[in-house]
Amino acid sequence: MNTFDFLLKKRQSKPRISGLTMVLDKGLGIKTAEDLVDISGSYIDLMKFGWGTIILHDKEIIKNKIAMYNSFNITAYPGGTLFEIAYRENKIPQYFEEVKDLGFKAIEISDGSTTISNEEKLKYIKEAKNKDLYVLSEVGKKNPNEDLDINIKSRVKSINEEIKAGSDIVIVEAREGGKNIGIYDANGVAKEDEVDYILKNVTEPDKILWEAPNKDQQIFFILKFGRDVNLGNISTNDVTSLETLRCGLRGDTLGKI
Amino acid sequence: MNTFDFLLKKRQSKPRISGLTMVLDKGLGIKTAEDLVDISGSYIDLMKFGWGTIILHDKEIIKNKIAMYNSFNITAYPGGTLFEIAYRENKIPQYFEEVKDLGFKAIEISDGSTTISNEEKLKYIKEAKNKDLYVLSEVGKKNPNEDLDINIKSRVKSINEEIKAGSDIVIVEAREGGKNIGIYDANGVAKEDEVDYILKNVTEPDKILWEAPNKDQQIFFILKFGRDVNLGNISTNDVTSLETLRCGLRGDTLGKI
Amino acid sequence: MNTFDFLLKKRQSKPRISGLTMVLDKGLGIKTAEDLVDISGSYIDLMKFGWGTIILHDKEIIKNKIAMYNSFNITAYPGGTLFEIAYRENKIPQYFEEVKDLGFKAIEISDGSTTISNEEKLKYIKEAKNKDLYVLSEVGKKNPNEDLDINIKSRVKSINEEIKAGSDIVIVEAREGGKNIGIYDANGVAKEDEVDYILKNVTEPDKILWEAPNKDQQIFFILKFGRDVNLGNISTNDVTSLETLRCGLRGDTLGKI
Repeated sequence: MNTFDFLLKKRQSKPRISGLTMVLDKGLGIKTAEDLVDISGSYIDLMKFGWGTIILHDKEIIKNKIAMYNSFNITAYPGGTLFEIAYRENKIPQYFEEVKDLGFKAIEISDGSTTISNEEKLKYIKEAKNKDLYVLSEVGKKNPNEDLDINIKSRVKSINEEIKAGSDIVIVEAREGGKNIGIYDANGVAKEDEVDYILKNVTEPDKILWEAPNKDQQIFFILKFGRDVNLGNISTNDVTSLETLRCGLRGDTLGKI
Repeated sequence: MNTFDFLLKKRQSKPRISGLTMVLDKGLGIKTAEDLVDISGSYIDLMKFGWGTIILHDKEIIKNKIAMYNSFNITAYPGGTLFEIAYRENKIPQYFEEVKDLGFKAIEISDGSTTISNEEKLKYIKEAKNKDLYVLSEVGKKNPNEDLDINIKSRVKSINEEIKAGSDIVIVEAREGGKNIGIYDANGVAKEDEVDYILKNVTEPDKILWEAPNKDQQIFFILKFGRDVNLGNISTNDVTSLETLRCGLRGDTLGKI
Repeated sequence: MNTFDFLLKKRQSKPRISGLTMVLDKGLGIKTAEDLVDISGSYIDLMKFGWGTIILHDKEIIKNKIAMYNSFNITAYPGGTLFEIAYRENKIPQYFEEVKDLGFKAIEISDGSTTISNEEKLKYIKEAKNKDLYVLSEVGKKNPNEDLDINIKSRVKSINEEIKAGSDIVIVEAREGGKNIGIYDANGVAKEDEVDYILKNVTEPDKILWEAPNKDQQIFFILKFGRDVNLGNISTNDVTSLETLRCGLRGDTLGKI
């Protein structure tokens, strides 16, 4: 039982189908990670091992971290950059094999740092689904100049194609920093007209997850779409803070949810 | 015994009546928290469980955290926003009861996100004192526009009334960010004339605690008022750093204290 | 064995003579520190206990931290400010004694916050070498105005003299913040012409270690000098991230190393 439960308007508990929180693990030690989820694991749906970080870590430690996250009903998955590295090295079959072998139940398919044709990307999404993996795909380029070149229509087209190909979640890229990328301007402020356009034109809006690493971005989406919006790239330090924003337990959203 | 004790000009040890450091716990796991206070607990006087965070946490974990902090002579208390949520829900009696039941020995009475009349706020301060609680009250609004509307005279008047009603400490609001709020401008720089005015016109200046989350703000207050100024909203990562600033052990204050 | 080892282009392992990573410990608890190095200790060559932080900590805890870091082949050393405090207090002999007694195998000699003549600084570097300590010396002033007064020629002259006197590593100062200091402008952007000038005119470029606390600074140096550049003042949160940048495992350097 929680403290002050007479004050809490509970959200649906896990497994949730909306209001997902995706957290960014940049290389936490396993005890630190366990201590975090022990207190606030109920508020983490997805845990991304950021970009290529886990290549640098011992296989036993990573297996234990994945198993530990799974035991808290947190879906762990390797960052899309790792998939792209395997693609560049022509080692996608080995990549899929090791993903399964490590105990991952989810995968991210992206092309943020690599040129992959639409057809190929959709093929890999389907392949991952066939391997019984939960699939997150990501739309956007990590290089701000390249990202700007993707116009909003083509962004929506990609999202819809990827959903159709089987993506369980499509992520709108914002990186760890959240500035000058995707739907955010150089100050990290969301471009509301682009957000509206995307939501209006995608076939399954509930499958969109917005990367929103900064507090003001989280507030923007929660006030705009309600507490059950899907948000990602949340810092491990901000897990509880984000949930208080969702539930109207912090000044910024208190009385507005 | 400390390392290099022949170099240290010790501050008074706990329990202190001035030079208080109030730290912001945004949801640390209990082992992480214990590891922190094990090395630097001597420099933490007050630990605030930020805003409504603990509503989201398991009652047993929070009881254990409070007891653990108490065992290090750190006064833990729930953020004022939690009091305000109880106020809005007409559940102040249950709130006081659970505060005591969890083992808290202190409480914060604030109106940063809620309209509460002066009379009522003072009444709650007195009620908390009657329940043998250490009382922190906070002056300021969390919304920057509302906060700007509080002129400096009325700010001082509130501080004096709250001290008279029994507040042990009156906090000058700056939030977690410390910008465009209270005594700070949009860049987080302290408005020195306002600080001077407050200090000159309050009846018991030692009961003022300045929220100063950023390093430059901490340096400003330490160089202005000396190492035994009361400071708050310190990040858990900066506990040791702040104490080095107080003691002239970092370049910014070395030779100036 | 690491995960996805078929994708990793390994760097040389420790002890390394180039590509050193120096990390800043601002007062981590010992279990938190151990958990960090347990997962990513292979990527930490040097661990600096920042400025005067350890004066504030219990001698047994610090002895245990040093021994723990040593057991992971991480060279721990006290920040240069601590040396300067001892210098100001005329207690250098006791300082050297306690450094050895605590188990440190390295020391930093700096004059960032204190006026020490060139001759004296070189004398202390030699004295530390005679005591079988690994010596890091630092060039630069912590006060931005004083630091600006050091022109680039005199900076290079100091570096060369300190190398000649025995410094194993000469650190180019950037503090924890990395802005408006040394080779960085007010926005933290490296002044490339100054960096070039230094590299071109020092006798042993491999002994230079650049403080680069921010991600963009790390990327700048890695893209300019390759993955085996020496970098320092890395946050404990960014250890794995920096190594992914070095190895081309993050979007910013992927395919460019």
